[in-house]
Amino acid sequence: MASTTLTFSNRDAHRAWLLSQAKLPAGFRVGSTRFEFVPREAPKPAKMTLTLIALDKPTEDFAAVFTRNALPGAPVLVGRRRLGEKQLSAVVINNKISNVCAPDGETASEQICLRTAELLGVTAKSVLPSSTGVIGWGLPVAAMLSALPAALPHLQSQTILPAAEGIVTTDLYPKIRRFDLAGGSIVGIAKGAGMIEPNLATMLVYILTDLAVPRDELRAMLKRVVEPSFNSISIDSDTSTSDTVALISSSLVPCSDLTAFEAGLAQVCQDLAEDVVRNGEGVRHVIRVAVSNAPNAATARQLGKAIVNAPLFKCAVAGNDPNVGRLVQAIGKHVGAHGNGLELSRLQLHMGGIELFAHGIFKLDPLKEKALGEHLRAAELYQSVPPVDGVFAAAVDYPPHERCVEIVVDLGVGDANATVLGGDLTHEYVSENADYRS
Amino acid sequence: MASTTLTFSNRDAHRAWLLSQAKLPAGFRVGSTRFEFVPREAPKPAKMTLTLIALDKPTEDFAAVFTRNALPGAPVLVGRRRLGEKQLSAVVINNKISNVCAPDGETASEQICLRTAELLGVTAKSVLPSSTGVIGWGLPVAAMLSALPAALPHLQSQTILPAAEGIVTTDLYPKIRRFDLAGGSIVGIAKGAGMIEPNLATMLVYILTDLAVPRDELRAMLKRVVEPSFNSISIDSDTSTSDTVALISSSLVPCSDLTAFEAGLAQVCQDLAEDVVRNGEGVRHVIRVAVSNAPNAATARQLGKAIVNAPLFKCAVAGNDPNVGRLVQAIGKHVGAHGNGLELSRLQLHMGGIELFAHGIFKLDPLKEKALGEHLRAAELYQSVPPVDGVFAAAVDYPPHERCVEIVVDLGVGDANATVLGGDLTHEYVSENADYRS
Repeated sequence: MASTTLTFSNRDAHRAWLLSQAKLPAGFRVGSTRFEFVPREAPKPAKMTLTLIALDKPTEDFAAVFTRNALPGAPVLVGRRRLGEKQLSAVVINNKISNVCAPDGETASEQICLRTAELLGVTAKSVLPSSTGVIGWGLPVAAMLSALPAALPHLQSQTILPAAEGIVTTDLYPKIRRFDLAGGSIVGIAKGAGMIEPNLATMLVYILTDLAVPRDELRAMLKRVVEPSFNSISIDSDTSTSDTVALISSSLVPCSDLTAFEAGLAQVCQDLAEDVVRNGEGVRHVIRVAVSNAPNAATARQLGKAIVNAPLFKCAVAGNDPNVGRLVQAIGKHVGAHGNGLELSRLQLHMGGIELFAHGIFKLDPLKEKALGEHLRAAELYQSVPPVDGVFAAAVDYPPHERCVEIVVDLGVGDANATVLGGDLTHEYVSENADYRS
Repeated sequence: MASTTLTFSNRDAHRAWLLSQAKLPAGFRVGSTRFEFVPREAPKPAKMTLTLIALDKPTEDFAAVFTRNALPGAPVLVGRRRLGEKQLSAVVINNKISNVCAPDGETASEQICLRTAELLGVTAKSVLPSSTGVIGWGLPVAAMLSALPAALPHLQSQTILPAAEGIVTTDLYPKIRRFDLAGGSIVGIAKGAGMIEPNLATMLVYILTDLAVPRDELRAMLKRVVEPSFNSISIDSDTSTSDTVALISSSLVPCSDLTAFEAGLAQVCQDLAEDVVRNGEGVRHVIRVAVSNAPNAATARQLGKAIVNAPLFKCAVAGNDPNVGRLVQAIGKHVGAHGNGLELSRLQLHMGGIELFAHGIFKLDPLKEKALGEHLRAAELYQSVPPVDGVFAAAVDYPPHERCVEIVVDLGVGDANATVLGGDLTHEYVSENADYRS
């Protein structure tokens, strides 16, 4: 659950809150630059933003986890090698083209790193590259090399907002979360899956801290905290070829309490993960599924994912329709296919605190139906409005509130739990990914 | 692939073709009746159709396969028991309510069987029940018992069309496929997933034959033929709690060539499976994925399913957008998560006969992009038209043609193959499952 339950009346109120979260940890500078180019695979010019995150001094304390997609992008392949390097000095991020399975993709990424390193006076192998955008196209290396120097004058050490905005070309709003601890801070930014341009699909997350945590601890912690956060969300079940979560410490502030640090890191990751879902493509309801009393955490998480990925249930939620038969269908589908004999005789289901199902039988009546409908409407982020041109678009560009559709699945067969977040399936999702604006 | 490649200029042409397929095998009668009732869980009256399939004489030669959903409907539980009975005399099918996890669901199904048996002069345990419709509601047993006698005068032995229509309340059109062999025939009907009423999700298939094939052979054949047909399709990845495929022989016509019978049965199943996809909820493109040179057939089928279930790729197809990056994403996602080390270095991809990807690299250019767009447009069943009320609906109630989006995935690591059929993800799908008509 988010550390806070926020509501925002408009975009300005949301932006003021983002600014209150945006102060950079000590030892970092960020900046970005935007330029136009012509992709070799398409006839029309496009725009790209290059974002730099630079450390004042190279650090040994960094960690990263990458997509499990078996056809990862070139920056992911390069990034995995960077984990073996002694030091990290900077991250260079581009949007618009994800550099996945393009000819000479790794060479292109390394060229961008080399030029970044020359400009910053560091080694190329201490620069981590990231790309997001069209899968299949190649990076416009020459144009990027020409554009890079313009980012340098923008580097500043006050706010992470330019980086949060620089990586977010298609999201509806930038995402920043922070945790303050013992004179230092942990500040994270995320690019979610807002696909107004119907070709993008990547989650990029960068978490900066000035708290001194050794590399091995950082890497072990990141592995642990991504499981209940970023690995417990799903917008649409599709796994990007470029997903990256990077955690970088400037190690300028002593950190005596690693447990408190990990708790703060977990909270920042949890908050950012929830932000990513709330700003997911076409998402009008965030669905939170708490699976309890499962035989183990993996089973609980997989069942939760099966529910938030079940298209018919997602459509019902989009329509504020408490079609709980589809919820039971989704559970039975998953357990029938992957449950390995999981026992369902003690299954109990609640939605919005209302009991739906127990002892193998539905507990439904017209009054409950009404209350469930009200719970769904209260969790709606915005109403869907039929557009005159047939192309649905999100009605708000800020998160109006942090309420969720709350589903509790009690398996009654063990003591393991997991919570999974997902979104509904809406016309806005289809429009973002199928419809064109002429 | 379908045995035929049909095109229909309008609904009448389609109906004339259906009639040409509809002659009943010897030894069967079918009929149906429709009535109104008030569900106990809802305030408004609803309509239900009861369909009977009766054998002139009880048969020992019948087979059925049922859903793998771990929370199956009561008729599925009863149906599994019926497989242990010596004889089958009839099938009684209702729509509107699926009788899943409702209080006393099995007792309700048995009561319907008993009354059907009394009317036909057979034993209750020789009657197979089937239900499709709302999950969570209970059967209106009293109303059904009262309505059943009215079906009897409608029983006739000429055409299966009344049964094909009786089980199909929400599909856009009935589905019938036949295969003639050695003086006998195999005739199948299917109810697909047309969800104009936003609560239904079931595939029911009944295949009747007069060719004499012993029970054990029938059951073994059915198990084999459902794998490449009904178990190789997916509209939306959701598995109904009621799916049923029943195969019944009156054994009136001697059958000396079981191999030819199984080939005919496989063809009928393949054709019906393709019909179900083509008439899937909101489907505007049928996607056929042929996976070749896989290490084994299960791996090939799972990879094909992962492609036709990938939401972003499905949306791109809906928009006639040859976004092949999303195709590669879907393959990489599946192999990364479930591939067990499957090697992708020899992966080759074609769409509409056009090479897209080989040796780890995309093969794209603006001319190919244009040709791929033309392939997608040629496979479109109807164009999506933005409605004035925001509720998208299918534009045709017959299958205009049998063309597919043709994808070939060559893994180059073995000699096993599988072909999987799916549909795109459209506004019409979301409307059928989320939007209400006032």
